[in-house]
Amino acid sequence: MSYQVIFQPSGRRGQVPPGKSLLEAARELGVDIEAPCGSAGICGKCKVKIETGFFPKFGLESSLQHLSLLTEEEQQTLMEEEIAENYRLACLTKVWGDVLVFVPEESRAAKQVVLEEGTRRSITVNPAVRKYLIHLESRSLGDSRGDWELLRESLWREHNLPSEITVDYFVLRKLPIVLREEEGQVTVWVWQGREVIGVEPGHGEGLYGVAVDVGTTTVAAYLCNLETGKVEATKSLMNPQVRYGEDVLSRISYAGTNPDGLADLNKVIIEGINGVIAALAAEAGLIPQQIADVTLVFNTAMHHLALNLEPQFLGQSPFLPAVKEALDLKARELGINISPGGRVHVLPVEAGFVGPDNMAVIIAEEPYNSPHTKLIIDIGTNGEIVLGNQDFLASTSCATGPALEGAQITFGMRAAEGAIERVRIEPRTLEVEFRVIGSDLWSSESNSGKARGICGSGIIDAVAELFSSGIISASGRFNKDLPTNRLRKNAAGKTEFVLAWAEETAINQDIIITQGDVRAVQLAKAALYVGAKYLMEKFGVDEVHEVILAGAFGTYIDREKALIMGMFPDCPPENIRAVGNAAGDGAKLALLNIDKRNEAGEIAKKVKFLETTLEPDFQTRFAEAIAFPHAKDGFPNAQELLNKIKEESDDE
Amino acid sequence: MSYQVIFQPSGRRGQVPPGKSLLEAARELGVDIEAPCGSAGICGKCKVKIETGFFPKFGLESSLQHLSLLTEEEQQTLMEEEIAENYRLACLTKVWGDVLVFVPEESRAAKQVVLEEGTRRSITVNPAVRKYLIHLESRSLGDSRGDWELLRESLWREHNLPSEITVDYFVLRKLPIVLREEEGQVTVWVWQGREVIGVEPGHGEGLYGVAVDVGTTTVAAYLCNLETGKVEATKSLMNPQVRYGEDVLSRISYAGTNPDGLADLNKVIIEGINGVIAALAAEAGLIPQQIADVTLVFNTAMHHLALNLEPQFLGQSPFLPAVKEALDLKARELGINISPGGRVHVLPVEAGFVGPDNMAVIIAEEPYNSPHTKLIIDIGTNGEIVLGNQDFLASTSCATGPALEGAQITFGMRAAEGAIERVRIEPRTLEVEFRVIGSDLWSSESNSGKARGICGSGIIDAVAELFSSGIISASGRFNKDLPTNRLRKNAAGKTEFVLAWAEETAINQDIIITQGDVRAVQLAKAALYVGAKYLMEKFGVDEVHEVILAGAFGTYIDREKALIMGMFPDCPPENIRAVGNAAGDGAKLALLNIDKRNEAGEIAKKVKFLETTLEPDFQTRFAEAIAFPHAKDGFPNAQELLNKIKEESDDE
Repeated sequence: MSYQVIFQPSGRRGQVPPGKSLLEAARELGVDIEAPCGSAGICGKCKVKIETGFFPKFGLESSLQHLSLLTEEEQQTLMEEEIAENYRLACLTKVWGDVLVFVPEESRAAKQVVLEEGTRRSITVNPAVRKYLIHLESRSLGDSRGDWELLRESLWREHNLPSEITVDYFVLRKLPIVLREEEGQVTVWVWQGREVIGVEPGHGEGLYGVAVDVGTTTVAAYLCNLETGKVEATKSLMNPQVRYGEDVLSRISYAGTNPDGLADLNKVIIEGINGVIAALAAEAGLIPQQIADVTLVFNTAMHHLALNLEPQFLGQSPFLPAVKEALDLKARELGINISPGGRVHVLPVEAGFVGPDNMAVIIAEEPYNSPHTKLIIDIGTNGEIVLGNQDFLASTSCATGPALEGAQITFGMRAAEGAIERVRIEPRTLEVEFRVIGSDLWSSESNSGKARGICGSGIIDAVAELFSSGIISASGRFNKDLPTNRLRKNAAGKTEFVLAWAEETAINQDIIITQGDVRAVQLAKAALYVGAKYLMEKFGVDEVHEVILAGAFGTYIDREKALIMGMFPDCPPENIRAVGNAAGDGAKLALLNIDKRNEAGEIAKKVKFLETTLEPDFQTRFAEAIAFPHAKDGFPNAQELLNKIKEESDDE
Repeated sequence: MSYQVIFQPSGRRGQVPPGKSLLEAARELGVDIEAPCGSAGICGKCKVKIETGFFPKFGLESSLQHLSLLTEEEQQTLMEEEIAENYRLACLTKVWGDVLVFVPEESRAAKQVVLEEGTRRSITVNPAVRKYLIHLESRSLGDSRGDWELLRESLWREHNLPSEITVDYFVLRKLPIVLREEEGQVTVWVWQGREVIGVEPGHGEGLYGVAVDVGTTTVAAYLCNLETGKVEATKSLMNPQVRYGEDVLSRISYAGTNPDGLADLNKVIIEGINGVIAALAAEAGLIPQQIADVTLVFNTAMHHLALNLEPQFLGQSPFLPAVKEALDLKARELGINISPGGRVHVLPVEAGFVGPDNMAVIIAEEPYNSPHTKLIIDIGTNGEIVLGNQDFLASTSCATGPALEGAQITFGMRAAEGAIERVRIEPRTLEVEFRVIGSDLWSSESNSGKARGICGSGIIDAVAELFSSGIISASGRFNKDLPTNRLRKNAAGKTEFVLAWAEETAINQDIIITQGDVRAVQLAKAALYVGAKYLMEKFGVDEVHEVILAGAFGTYIDREKALIMGMFPDCPPENIRAVGNAAGDGAKLALLNIDKRNEAGEIAKKVKFLETTLEPDFQTRFAEAIAFPHAKDGFPNAQELLNKIKEESDDE
């Protein structure tokens, strides 16, 4: 004797013996319904709608009469309108006939959410840490089970968790008190279905995690609700290691040459991460102890410095990391202040200089699920390039230098208020107009913003315009003889170009671009171009379908100008897409969905890394790429070009 | 094409393809040969003897010619005599014909050792932590594996360890340095074949562990060589928690009534354990960082106090522990200073007041492997009694009080120099002779030791003699009218007995036994007797084959006197066996052999615990047992006896 039960919208169906609850039936049929209160009829999360009538498609007649009577708990928990619309609590409703059940979105354990930042990404909420409400059995006389054993058996009985589940030592320490606070009602945090990492008395509110993208310069952190998938707060701070060195190599060198170098660097970044977590929690009205899980992404050097791993061999050829695989650590081992039993997941390293941050970009963009070939460019102090589709995935790292981030440019600055971000040069008059961050007006308009310096996208714009207007040649050299007072020689006799006159600035001096600034941009764009071209050639790709620009830089860059400069291989401008901080998005995805962690682990093993600098013709190809495309004054060969550039540099 | 290879003494045999090494052949045939150096021919531990000649039993002719030639490494590693006796290194010797191989004891991976303390126990050395010597592959150009991935693959390739093996975070931190120190030669410590918990550059020397028995009063610790099984050093110290309370209940109360009570108690015991570990290491010429593993046993209260677990519910009915199962923890989580990645194994709790120490006694004595019924009595502040054989196992806990340890006795003291440990009373003259610890002479002999107090075995001896000589009655009351000046009234009018005159002592005062002292011993022995009798009755045991006395007390007690007193059910004195600190032995066994840990885990679930104080006739039975056996003045019933005792106490 059994009845047919069908769950919509999944369409899962099966025969169920009389008297089973709808929740039990759903579990047996693989339909995931939320039931955090352990079938007590309190939380109301397992709400389902009973469809009534005859359903010829299924040959099934469904009726409320086919179910146990509405219980008192349901009457209390469900709203009147819900009861009128045939809503029931799956945990309390028993099957006594054929039924068709609709599981509303909010009752499904695996919810879909959309991340809105940078680019829209849809994700199923399936976090590593889940919350279970437990009602401990009352003990009979002579029941001498330990507190932990009682809790473990309740987790098994009420939530079907495996009996081999373990408990974190710090949780064990407070277990006796917590279990007795709310008459045996306890909220339990379980990591990966296999370790209890937190307990709260009674019906615990909320479960949170933090995704952190630890950049060389900026740390970005996102507080997420692990139950709803919502991003509750976002914060960033300057990486406090900056005081020990602007770039990762100088920090690795600091670690190697100072007695407590690594410890110093580690201490400040952990303090920084703790600071940003505390600020996130405060903004959301929480305390850090309510945070159960953290995901970390970073480049490989920051990976080592933040995890306190010896970095010296990463800083010298052949650039080997201490570990590549993903790490599951306890937050307290790293000194990260969240819940005492809280967890940290570190995404895997791909290759020496291609780090978890790039892995995060990959799981956010999922080129491996695409039939089209994507070229993903993530520009930081290093440029990381990924090329691939559903059939292959390859990556390389390019030493772009910091020019594209606006650093080591004479008037370079971060993308902050007052930074020149757009430049236009009139080809006939050679007059300049610019726009600064914080203002919508061009400098030629009244009340436009005053300039303070040039950010990454501004220097690209400027150099592209200098080239388009003929102020610099295809080789990148200033055309000194042009009739404009913006081209001038400085005290040392070197040519420079005035982008903004002192009166257009907030710093009361002319903002100029030097030949060295142009060269820095040329080197960076050549590195990117050559890296992408090598990947395409090695994997037989003639043309990419899509160019994806990750990172803040990509968001602000003018795509056509990047193409004019030859920053990456040709692609129709409409197929160039900026996706913002995809590394941060990947960290959020890995925080919200454990499958993305597994995906990262699998993909990391499959990405083929190409070390372009080991290619025999690298020098030649790199030299060729330094020139701007469609060179009008054509160089006979790369060596000659290199020599020419060298001469120019000497004579500037 | 294959050859027959037979290994002796196990007799394992099989067909082996030409060119296989003897070590590989042994592994395939399930013969466990030591090979810590990873087949480099350096360590010489895989030494085997080739038997030559014709062996009709096997139809096999064995010859040195059936093997590859002696290598240079073997010539260097083996001694001349060994070579003359056909010893070879199994890792370097290839099979080119039929051979008969003898594996000497010292080359077998599973060695037998004998623990000598207290009682002889034979144990196979099979520790949780094992050492492997690795020769890292040299990397080819473009090999971008992380250091950990390289090591993991070497562990798999050279030692067949599972590829899912993990690495402790603290080990990971120093990995890059250690791997590069000795040209890729690394010694790796692996816990349970599944986690790397230590790395040393080159060929690491020695692997050590410490077994600790954390008693309420005394902490005993044993430093063991995990490779040879040898106990290298033994130390003990007074449990530093004594300053917070003599017994566990007063410490639990301290923890409950002081703001940082538990933290205080935990801090001092962890400091104590660290101190004893440091002293052990110093004695063996080691540093604590060379210790990889620790096993801990204790009663349940000390379990909670040493592990920093909330003890308050253990101290009140129904006496529930926070956890019962065995725990595998990292030493650093507990604050125990050994190797940074070192491990701690905590044996399981049986029931509220029957702790891991009793579990250790059980795995040392193994009643579950015996066809005979054993009664195991472990006397501490609580008495724990185990009854069982291969068919059943039951335990109970008896509130003996500290009298049998010499505490709370007027002149009680620990079993140290000057403690009276033996007493004889001449029945006619009622004259006393005693012997003190530190002297072989009786007090009647010249140059005998001076007394300082009475230890546990001394008080038993004294009370048994008082009863045998009629100075106390079967009810335990002083026979005040006897003609001896040793029986006298004190200032408060209470009767006391002088055991040693002031001039026989080192404290210049008479050492006396009061009626209260006699009562304390009576209560203790009654508790033990009733506990044992209940267990026997409940499990249908009329007579036990063996009584095993564990603990220091058992070692010094006079068995016949214990029988006279009715301390435990009748048993021929020759079947009463004292086994010393069996709890400490159990801790050592669990340290040296992982199977003993699994055994403890299994057995702990099977031991049936009897709460004797819940038995309806407990009060009556207990009262009856307070009297000494063969009562001459027979009491009509227990209630009357109790009343009588009460009156006597009031009137003393």
